[in-house]
Amino acid sequence: MLNYEARLDLVFHALSAPVRREIVRRLSLGPATVSDLAQPLTVSLPAVVQHLEILETSGLVRTHKTGRVRTCRIESAALKSAEDWIAKRRAGSASIA
Amino acid sequence: MLNYEARLDLVFHALSAPVRREIVRRLSLGPATVSDLAQPLTVSLPAVVQHLEILETSGLVRTHKTGRVRTCRIESAALKSAEDWIAKRRAGSASIA
Repeated sequence: MLNYEARLDLVFHALSAPVRREIVRRLSLGPATVSDLAQPLTVSLPAVVQHLEILETSGLVRTHKTGRVRTCRIESAALKSAEDWIAKRRAGSASIA
Repeated sequence: MLNYEARLDLVFHALSAPVRREIVRRLSLGPATVSDLAQPLTVSLPAVVQHLEILETSGLVRTHKTGRVRTCRIESAALKSAEDWIAKRRAGSASIA
Protein backbone atom coordinates (compact mmCIF):
# COMPACT_ATOMS: atom_id res chain seq x y z
CA MET A 1 0.00 0.00 0.00
CA LEU A 2 1.46 3.30 -1.12
CA ASN A 3 1.31 6.27 1.17
CA TYR A 4 -0.45 9.49 0.14
CA GLU A 5 2.67 11.35 -1.07
CA ALA A 6 4.02 8.37 -3.04
CA ARG A 7 0.60 7.95 -4.66
CA LEU A 8 0.54 11.64 -5.65
CA ASP A 9 4.03 11.27 -7.19
CA LEU A 10 2.72 8.47 -9.42
CA VAL A 11 -0.56 10.19 -10.29
CA PHE A 12 1.08 13.48 -11.32
CA HIS A 13 3.80 11.61 -13.21
CA ALA A 14 1.15 9.54 -15.01
CA LEU A 15 -0.65 12.74 -16.05
CA SER A 16 2.55 14.36 -17.39
CA ALA A 17 2.39 12.63 -20.82
CA PRO A 18 -0.11 13.63 -23.53
CA VAL A 19 -0.84 10.01 -24.56
CA ARG A 20 -1.70 9.06 -20.97
CA ARG A 21 -3.90 12.13 -20.56
CA GLU A 22 -5.66 11.18 -23.80
CA ILE A 23 -6.28 7.67 -22.41
CA VAL A 24 -7.68 9.15 -19.17
CA ARG A 25 -9.86 11.54 -21.20
CA ARG A 26 -11.22 8.64 -23.27
CA LEU A 27 -11.85 6.48 -20.18
CA SER A 28 -13.63 9.36 -18.46
CA LEU A 29 -16.34 8.80 -21.11
CA GLY A 30 -16.69 5.10 -20.24
CA PRO A 31 -14.78 1.78 -20.08
CA ALA A 32 -12.83 0.73 -23.16
CA THR A 33 -10.75 -2.21 -24.32
CA VAL A 34 -7.02 -1.81 -24.97
CA SER A 35 -7.68 -2.03 -28.74
CA ASP A 36 -10.40 0.66 -28.49
CA LEU A 37 -7.92 2.89 -26.70
CA ALA A 38 -5.07 2.22 -29.13
CA GLN A 39 -7.12 2.70 -32.30
CA PRO A 40 -7.24 6.53 -32.44
CA LEU A 41 -3.77 6.98 -30.91
CA THR A 42 -0.67 7.56 -32.99
CA VAL A 43 1.47 5.18 -30.93
CA SER A 44 1.93 1.41 -31.22
CA LEU A 45 -0.13 -1.11 -29.27
CA PRO A 46 2.89 -2.14 -27.11
CA ALA A 47 3.44 1.55 -26.29
CA VAL A 48 -0.23 1.90 -25.28
CA VAL A 49 0.15 -1.17 -23.03
CA GLN A 50 3.19 0.44 -21.37
CA HIS A 51 1.30 3.70 -20.82
CA LEU A 52 -1.61 1.71 -19.36
CA GLU A 53 0.77 0.01 -16.92
CA ILE A 54 1.94 3.41 -15.68
CA LEU A 55 -1.68 4.54 -15.33
CA GLU A 56 -2.63 1.33 -13.51
CA THR A 57 0.33 1.55 -11.11
CA SER A 58 -0.65 5.15 -10.30
CA GLY A 59 -4.19 4.01 -9.43
CA LEU A 60 -5.79 6.18 -12.14
CA VAL A 61 -6.92 3.21 -14.21
CA ARG A 62 -8.14 -0.27 -13.36
CA THR A 63 -8.05 -3.08 -15.92
CA HIS A 64 -9.82 -6.41 -16.01
CA LYS A 65 -9.19 -9.29 -18.39
CA THR A 66 -12.00 -11.50 -19.67
CA GLY A 67 -10.70 -14.17 -22.03
CA ARG A 68 -8.37 -12.31 -24.36
CA VAL A 69 -9.98 -8.91 -23.93
CA ARG A 70 -8.64 -6.42 -21.39
CA THR A 71 -11.12 -3.73 -20.40
CA CYS A 72 -9.95 -0.49 -18.79
CA ARG A 73 -11.84 1.83 -16.46
CA ILE A 74 -11.06 5.13 -14.79
CA GLU A 75 -10.58 5.21 -11.01
CA SER A 76 -11.95 8.57 -10.09
CA ALA A 77 -10.63 8.41 -6.49
CA ALA A 78 -7.06 8.85 -7.75
CA LEU A 79 -8.10 11.78 -9.95
CA LYS A 80 -9.87 13.29 -6.97
CA SER A 81 -6.78 13.06 -4.73
CA ALA A 82 -4.75 15.02 -7.30
CA GLU A 83 -7.54 17.55 -7.85
CA ASP A 84 -7.97 18.06 -4.10
CA TRP A 85 -4.25 18.60 -3.61
CA ILE A 86 -4.19 21.34 -6.27
CA ALA A 87 -7.45 22.90 -5.05
CA LYS A 88 -6.00 23.29 -1.53
CA ARG A 89 -2.89 25.05 -2.86
CA ARG A 90 -5.00 27.29 -5.10
CA ALA A 91 -7.25 28.19 -2.19
CA GLY A 92 -4.19 29.27 -0.20
CA SER A 93 -2.72 31.29 -3.04
CA ALA A 94 -6.06 32.98 -3.86
CA SER A 95 -6.14 34.57 -0.43
CA ILE A 96 -2.76 36.25 -1.03
CA ALA A 97 -3.22 37.22 -4.71
CA MET B 1 5.12 30.32 -25.93
CA LEU B 2 4.20 26.78 -24.98
CA ASN B 3 0.94 25.31 -26.17
CA TYR B 4 -1.69 24.06 -23.72
CA GLU B 5 -0.67 20.36 -23.84
CA ALA B 6 3.06 21.07 -23.51
CA ARG B 7 2.31 23.34 -20.55
CA LEU B 8 0.25 20.60 -18.86
CA ASP B 9 3.13 18.12 -19.38
CA LEU B 10 5.46 20.47 -17.50
CA VAL B 11 2.95 21.34 -14.74
CA PHE B 12 2.10 17.70 -13.96
CA HIS B 13 5.77 16.72 -14.15
CA ALA B 14 6.66 19.57 -11.78
CA LEU B 15 4.02 18.34 -9.29
CA SER B 16 5.30 14.74 -9.41
CA ALA B 17 8.08 15.28 -6.84
CA PRO B 18 7.43 15.70 -3.10
CA VAL B 19 9.99 18.49 -2.67
CA ARG B 20 8.43 20.53 -5.46
CA ARG B 21 4.93 19.99 -4.02
CA GLU B 22 6.25 21.14 -0.65
CA ILE B 23 7.64 24.32 -2.29
CA VAL B 24 4.26 24.95 -3.99
CA ARG B 25 2.48 24.33 -0.67
CA ARG B 26 4.76 26.82 1.09
CA LEU B 27 4.35 29.43 -1.65
CA SER B 28 0.58 29.03 -1.58
CA LEU B 29 0.81 30.68 1.86
CA GLY B 30 2.72 33.69 0.50
CA PRO B 31 5.93 34.72 -1.33
CA ALA B 32 9.24 33.45 0.06
CA THR B 33 12.94 33.83 -0.65
CA VAL B 34 14.98 30.86 -1.86
CA SER B 35 16.63 30.61 1.58
CA ASP B 36 13.23 30.66 3.31
CA LEU B 37 12.15 27.81 1.07
CA ALA B 38 15.33 25.79 1.55
CA GLN B 39 15.48 26.16 5.34
CA PRO B 40 12.86 23.52 6.36
CA LEU B 41 13.67 21.19 3.46
CA THR B 42 15.97 18.22 3.79
CA VAL B 43 17.71 18.87 0.46
CA SER B 44 20.70 21.10 -0.34
CA LEU B 45 20.34 24.71 -1.52
CA PRO B 46 21.57 23.83 -5.06
CA ALA B 47 18.93 21.08 -5.21
CA VAL B 48 16.24 23.57 -4.16
CA VAL B 49 17.43 25.94 -6.90
CA GLN B 50 17.12 23.12 -9.45
CA HIS B 51 13.62 22.25 -8.25
CA LEU B 52 12.68 25.95 -8.49
CA GLU B 53 13.92 26.05 -12.10
CA ILE B 54 11.61 23.15 -12.97
CA LEU B 55 8.72 24.91 -11.21
CA GLU B 56 9.50 28.19 -12.97
CA THR B 57 9.74 26.54 -16.42
CA SER B 58 6.36 24.90 -15.81
CA GLY B 59 4.83 28.29 -15.04
CA LEU B 60 3.82 27.28 -11.48
CA VAL B 61 6.26 29.66 -9.83
CA ARG B 62 7.58 33.11 -10.72
CA THR B 63 10.81 34.45 -9.24
CA HIS B 64 12.18 37.97 -9.02
CA LYS B 65 15.67 39.00 -7.99
CA THR B 66 16.33 42.16 -5.99
CA GLY B 67 20.01 42.60 -5.25
CA ARG B 68 21.14 39.20 -4.05
CA VAL B 69 17.75 38.04 -2.85
CA ARG B 70 15.49 35.97 -5.11
CA THR B 71 11.82 36.01 -4.10
CA CYS B 72 9.44 33.30 -5.32
CA ARG B 73 5.68 33.50 -5.81
CA ILE B 74 3.03 31.04 -6.87
CA GLU B 75 1.35 31.48 -10.28
CA SER B 76 -2.15 30.27 -9.63
CA ALA B 77 -3.12 30.29 -13.34
CA ALA B 78 -0.87 27.27 -13.95
CA LEU B 79 -2.34 25.45 -10.93
CA LYS B 80 -5.79 26.27 -12.24
CA SER B 81 -5.10 24.82 -15.71
CA ALA B 82 -4.07 21.49 -14.12
CA GLU B 83 -7.02 21.51 -11.70
CA ASP B 84 -9.46 22.28 -14.53
CA TRP B 85 -8.08 19.47 -16.68
CA ILE B 86 -8.61 16.94 -13.86
CA ALA B 87 -12.02 18.34 -12.93
CA LYS B 88 -13.26 17.86 -16.51
CA ARG B 89 -12.15 14.22 -16.55
CA ARG B 90 -13.69 13.61 -13.14
CA ALA B 91 -16.97 15.16 -14.26
CA GLY B 92 -17.03 12.76 -17.21
CA SER B 93 -16.22 9.73 -15.11
CA ALA B 94 -18.77 10.63 -12.39
CA SER B 95 -21.60 10.35 -14.89
CA ILE B 96 -20.62 6.76 -15.70
CA ALA B 97 -19.75 5.57 -12.17
